[in-house]
Amino acid sequence: MSMETTNSQITTRMSSNSPRVAVVGASGYGGMQIVRLLLDHPFFRITFLGGDKSAGSKWNELFPFLLLNDDIEINKPDIDLIAKTSDFVVLSLPNGIASSLVPNLLDRNLRIVDLSADYRYRSLEKWASSYAIEARKLSRDDNDLCKEAIYGLPEWNQKHISQGKLIAAPGCFPTASLLALLPFINQGLIDYEGIIIDAKTGTSGGGRIAKEHLLLSEASEGISPYGVIGHRHTTEIEQQLSEVARSTIKVQFTPHLVPMARGLLVTSYARLRDPGLTAEDCTTVLEAIYKDQPFIQILPVGTYPSTKWSRYTNKAFLSVQVDKRTSRIVIMSAIDNLFKGQAAQAIQCLNLMGGYDQQLALPLTSYYP
Amino acid sequence: MSMETTNSQITTRMSSNSPRVAVVGASGYGGMQIVRLLLDHPFFRITFLGGDKSAGSKWNELFPFLLLNDDIEINKPDIDLIAKTSDFVVLSLPNGIASSLVPNLLDRNLRIVDLSADYRYRSLEKWASSYAIEARKLSRDDNDLCKEAIYGLPEWNQKHISQGKLIAAPGCFPTASLLALLPFINQGLIDYEGIIIDAKTGTSGGGRIAKEHLLLSEASEGISPYGVIGHRHTTEIEQQLSEVARSTIKVQFTPHLVPMARGLLVTSYARLRDPGLTAEDCTTVLEAIYKDQPFIQILPVGTYPSTKWSRYTNKAFLSVQVDKRTSRIVIMSAIDNLFKGQAAQAIQCLNLMGGYDQQLALPLTSYYP
Amino acid sequence: MSMETTNSQITTRMSSNSPRVAVVGASGYGGMQIVRLLLDHPFFRITFLGGDKSAGSKWNELFPFLLLNDDIEINKPDIDLIAKTSDFVVLSLPNGIASSLVPNLLDRNLRIVDLSADYRYRSLEKWASSYAIEARKLSRDDNDLCKEAIYGLPEWNQKHISQGKLIAAPGCFPTASLLALLPFINQGLIDYEGIIIDAKTGTSGGGRIAKEHLLLSEASEGISPYGVIGHRHTTEIEQQLSEVARSTIKVQFTPHLVPMARGLLVTSYARLRDPGLTAEDCTTVLEAIYKDQPFIQILPVGTYPSTKWSRYTNKAFLSVQVDKRTSRIVIMSAIDNLFKGQAAQAIQCLNLMGGYDQQLALPLTSYYP
Amino acid sequence: MSMETTNSQITTRMSSNSPRVAVVGASGYGGMQIVRLLLDHPFFRITFLGGDKSAGSKWNELFPFLLLNDDIEINKPDIDLIAKTSDFVVLSLPNGIASSLVPNLLDRNLRIVDLSADYRYRSLEKWASSYAIEARKLSRDDNDLCKEAIYGLPEWNQKHISQGKLIAAPGCFPTASLLALLPFINQGLIDYEGIIIDAKTGTSGGGRIAKEHLLLSEASEGISPYGVIGHRHTTEIEQQLSEVARSTIKVQFTPHLVPMARGLLVTSYARLRDPGLTAEDCTTVLEAIYKDQPFIQILPVGTYPSTKWSRYTNKAFLSVQVDKRTSRIVIMSAIDNLFKGQAAQAIQCLNLMGGYDQQLALPLTSYYP
Repeated sequence: MSMETTNSQITTRMSSNSPRVAVVGASGYGGMQIVRLLLDHPFFRITFLGGDKSAGSKWNELFPFLLLNDDIEINKPDIDLIAKTSDFVVLSLPNGIASSLVPNLLDRNLRIVDLSADYRYRSLEKWASSYAIEARKLSRDDNDLCKEAIYGLPEWNQKHISQGKLIAAPGCFPTASLLALLPFINQGLIDYEGIIIDAKTGTSGGGRIAKEHLLLSEASEGISPYGVIGHRHTTEIEQQLSEVARSTIKVQFTPHLVPMARGLLVTSYARLRDPGLTAEDCTTVLEAIYKDQPFIQILPVGTYPSTKWSRYTNKAFLSVQVDKRTSRIVIMSAIDNLFKGQAAQAIQCLNLMGGYDQQLALPLTSYYP
Repeated sequence: MSMETTNSQITTRMSSNSPRVAVVGASGYGGMQIVRLLLDHPFFRITFLGGDKSAGSKWNELFPFLLLNDDIEINKPDIDLIAKTSDFVVLSLPNGIASSLVPNLLDRNLRIVDLSADYRYRSLEKWASSYAIEARKLSRDDNDLCKEAIYGLPEWNQKHISQGKLIAAPGCFPTASLLALLPFINQGLIDYEGIIIDAKTGTSGGGRIAKEHLLLSEASEGISPYGVIGHRHTTEIEQQLSEVARSTIKVQFTPHLVPMARGLLVTSYARLRDPGLTAEDCTTVLEAIYKDQPFIQILPVGTYPSTKWSRYTNKAFLSVQVDKRTSRIVIMSAIDNLFKGQAAQAIQCLNLMGGYDQQLALPLTSYYP
Repeated sequence: MSMETTNSQITTRMSSNSPRVAVVGASGYGGMQIVRLLLDHPFFRITFLGGDKSAGSKWNELFPFLLLNDDIEINKPDIDLIAKTSDFVVLSLPNGIASSLVPNLLDRNLRIVDLSADYRYRSLEKWASSYAIEARKLSRDDNDLCKEAIYGLPEWNQKHISQGKLIAAPGCFPTASLLALLPFINQGLIDYEGIIIDAKTGTSGGGRIAKEHLLLSEASEGISPYGVIGHRHTTEIEQQLSEVARSTIKVQFTPHLVPMARGLLVTSYARLRDPGLTAEDCTTVLEAIYKDQPFIQILPVGTYPSTKWSRYTNKAFLSVQVDKRTSRIVIMSAIDNLFKGQAAQAIQCLNLMGGYDQQLALPLTSYYP
Repeated sequence: MSMETTNSQITTRMSSNSPRVAVVGASGYGGMQIVRLLLDHPFFRITFLGGDKSAGSKWNELFPFLLLNDDIEINKPDIDLIAKTSDFVVLSLPNGIASSLVPNLLDRNLRIVDLSADYRYRSLEKWASSYAIEARKLSRDDNDLCKEAIYGLPEWNQKHISQGKLIAAPGCFPTASLLALLPFINQGLIDYEGIIIDAKTGTSGGGRIAKEHLLLSEASEGISPYGVIGHRHTTEIEQQLSEVARSTIKVQFTPHLVPMARGLLVTSYARLRDPGLTAEDCTTVLEAIYKDQPFIQILPVGTYPSTKWSRYTNKAFLSVQVDKRTSRIVIMSAIDNLFKGQAAQAIQCLNLMGGYDQQLALPLTSYYP
């Protein structure tokens, strides 16, 4: 009766040698998701909660709607304390900050999943050119780590993630864009030139820190583009596409802010190299490539995904159409920006790093409506 | 690491003698919730899906966002077929319709949870006076069943539910109102006269059948009262309060439609008999009464619940304030109208009927935001 | 073809001796509304825009969606400059700040509408007891001004407003509550004891300054009470009710935050002194009292207002029900919290102060949906 | 102090020979907008309200939030009655229905603005190929009228509209798309091949008739594509672009449903013929072309429009970016789908047909937030 059979087949759990996880930046949206998901995990247990503003408070007082069984005090992210209490670390910090902790954490043999962009680029230089403001403030010299870090997109990088010490969890827009485009790039089915990625995200992508434009009064009852041309996820997407294509790919990426809390939809447009391909053909391509992937659901031609279907799950819903008149393919991908687009995908990586089934503690089915 | 330990302690499940459940009215919101929750259940398995409009379709085609492992065809609610395939039945039908199926289903020894109002009243007459339109259309003569049916509010009726054959699942407003008021009625702490219940619900309470006033265009960006004075949940609340009080209680109940899909908040006002009682005293009363109830969370004085905290869970959040100036108590209760207010509470009843831990497959913690 | 005939009967306008208005705190929600409404005013013209953070910027650069014909630079609120440029001042500042400007502005013969609570109480002492935090920070000694200030609720105070020099615009909750309750207090139709005011507001009531709990991610898809027992509008409501009753009235007031940008609904409960009164009788009372009031619309019995109907208008929609079983009256009032609840009502006051028709430039009909 | 000076300069109005307008289909969203806008019109007056379901009711009873000064009864759309009472007709009917009234109305010398798609195509054949379902049900033979009808996009067709007898008001998506793309097509600045139009609309575009997918419960908290490849506005856009280009243009058009009541955003992508053009150059092109157009506001480079800015106005906000890396232009256009995208644009046409200033009674500035 259940697709989530793995969890319940577990008979022993929570033994004292269950792997211990530190969540640093626990009271932002990323951290809260990690805490929520690990609540249901049969093996991993949270042993450290790190935060700056909330340091000294008990978690359950601050989050009466997200109670921990064993209430934990939130602490400043002290390296020694983290090393003493934890085996794994999830970092959910503003861009640039993770890089000030990661080298020391690795020295203590901790294994890390970083939700920020700090280690998503193959070189410090590439990072600095996209994250110029942060780069100017910091003096990073961890180019080696940039090279070694593993890009945490499990559907395309499972083996490396399993053995990784430092996982750079992908951005939310790159996750949805890459899952949609990589199959067609990989198979050489679309032109590398002229790819358009029109993306739509809910407000939680902007984080929990109060900003005027994310107030309900401002963000409700309107949709608007932002970061047109220059959004930093552009280069992250391009790097991954180019690696698979073994050729430089440039995309046109435009994000939009949608009046909803969660959800991310990417509508991608590209020209088919073979104008004879049908939507059914392209759907078959997706089905073949993702046939063993539990978190990818390919929709039949003519069924289009709502981000609402993916809410609070680790799933990506994909759908394809082909316009014969224009020889163009339209690929739609819907995810939950904080789950498959961030924290749940990070847990998927943690599962792999811990040698577990990647599905552990990850919801497959939304509550609707 | 998990508050939901029960599920995972299960070692054997889904054996061929797992109890079989029919869900009739499966494609409305109530039915969909039952299906969704049973997906994660270690014992119960869905063996029949009943629907009129959708009969003949495969479930997974209609609900690509709520996939069943073993896809089932939706059938007309035929008594023989239900009896052959099922041990338990959950009825999620418009008011009045359940009463045309229940007598026959009971004859076949099926055990039933009915989500409608058909068996919530102690007599046919009382039902008919509140559900006059339905009563006029139908010619019910099952007064005996009205008397025998068990009111499915587990926190106040657990023993009877466990042994019940026909459970009348409470209305969403009564659930939130009764959980808030019964402790104070039971302890004789508040005046029976002058109780005000000001309730606020999301649009899913109005069901999935398209109605103009529930369109996003109409229902968004506005709040309005409805059913003022005459709402039918008034008499349901009064019946239950009066039974516990052993005295006739009349309440002033006003529902409001709030621009959100799910959630139900009840703000109740009453006069304290002892004006010396403090909010802390009243909180202690709630804690004592609900101390063994896993689905009731009492908040500290000064912390007020958001329905968002209860979304997609079977929990009720309660909070109390006392105004010394007016000798009045204000009791706030927040639930998910489709879960604790309907379908998840029904599963809680099913768990008890099946002899299981009442917590099986019922979410305790929301995903936030 | 138009209910708003007044505007268009004007033949001459914008002459050089049109009254000049300073808007101080122009970039908050209150100030923005004043600017927007005065855009359409046939006589008043904005000659000064005051703001702290935005000082030095041109209005039209900051507000491309709210263009002024004659673009004005935003200035620090300098008394001399205001006095030189303006005849009237609208102050839209955080509580406490207005009182540091008002005495000096009055000395320069400016006439003032203050949107804050600083002059809503009959004495400094009463203000200080409700606004204790502000009172502790400031050392006000303008008790005389507190006594002289006119409470700006035009439907009940028109004559005094017309001649006033300092108008204290009412709070949003008091406006909706008083318009509903004053008629019945005034006519002695309801018990003074036991009045319950259950209020629901949109997020714009919390202002434009970014706060976590007002983020769309937090405030959407949930409703919650706040300020239970102690909300400061309680004493403001009580003061006005008590003055009309010539007797001390205490009310139970509970506000709730609703997931919408604008709108405020008040549901008031009271016991009828004469239990024989019907809803129709009570509706007639309202119609009689408000028969010359263009901004009050009394709904027929059984029609309940949505705040959506009042959005972007200066109207209050009122509706009454009576429950014979409980001898209670339920009065519903719906307004736009930023318009009739704040800025548009302030313009209504300005119109009266300027000797104009009170309806000038004030919208009567919402755009729907 | 006002941008809307025209209205108030009017000294005489509502004389008995003011032009009379019939609104047929008055209780749908299109009709309601027409009624609302004409409320404020200095000349046009509503003399007939047509509806099927609501026939026999008084308008003010059905629409207490949209009161007419002179309450009118809603009537079946009888040609004789319309002809007797009216000079102009606005038809707001489901696709296909208008064509059964238009020939007769024209025979009676009425001048018509039709909000449906019935006369938007240059030939019956083209209409029938895009509106096949409607074409199968009806037996239209008014190909002549299709040829004669004027496409009601005033910024590009003002002269013809002024003299037109039958105006086909454009679709909402075509309005936003054409205002964005026509300048660059007209100037030959972009490639005709490869134009991508990614559009986002609020739910009111789906009309007021209740449909499951437009319920708040369904449409909130999610975004999804629909009508991918085959949406009927595609051919309407292509027809207009091709006429200006004097060359066949095919576009890739994808609409998305956004969780908001009103608003429509179009993000268009095209390749610049001259890769040296900058965003500033392209902005200058727009400014030059639209310099005399009161309803088009060109935003500075780097300022992106929210549909919220255009809500309840007849304005289109346009913004351009250029990506040198890809030689592509991104043009963003935001409108209110029911106003500039439908009814207000229809009033703009009516104004021109009546020989008035096109701005009469049309809002330029939104209420925000």
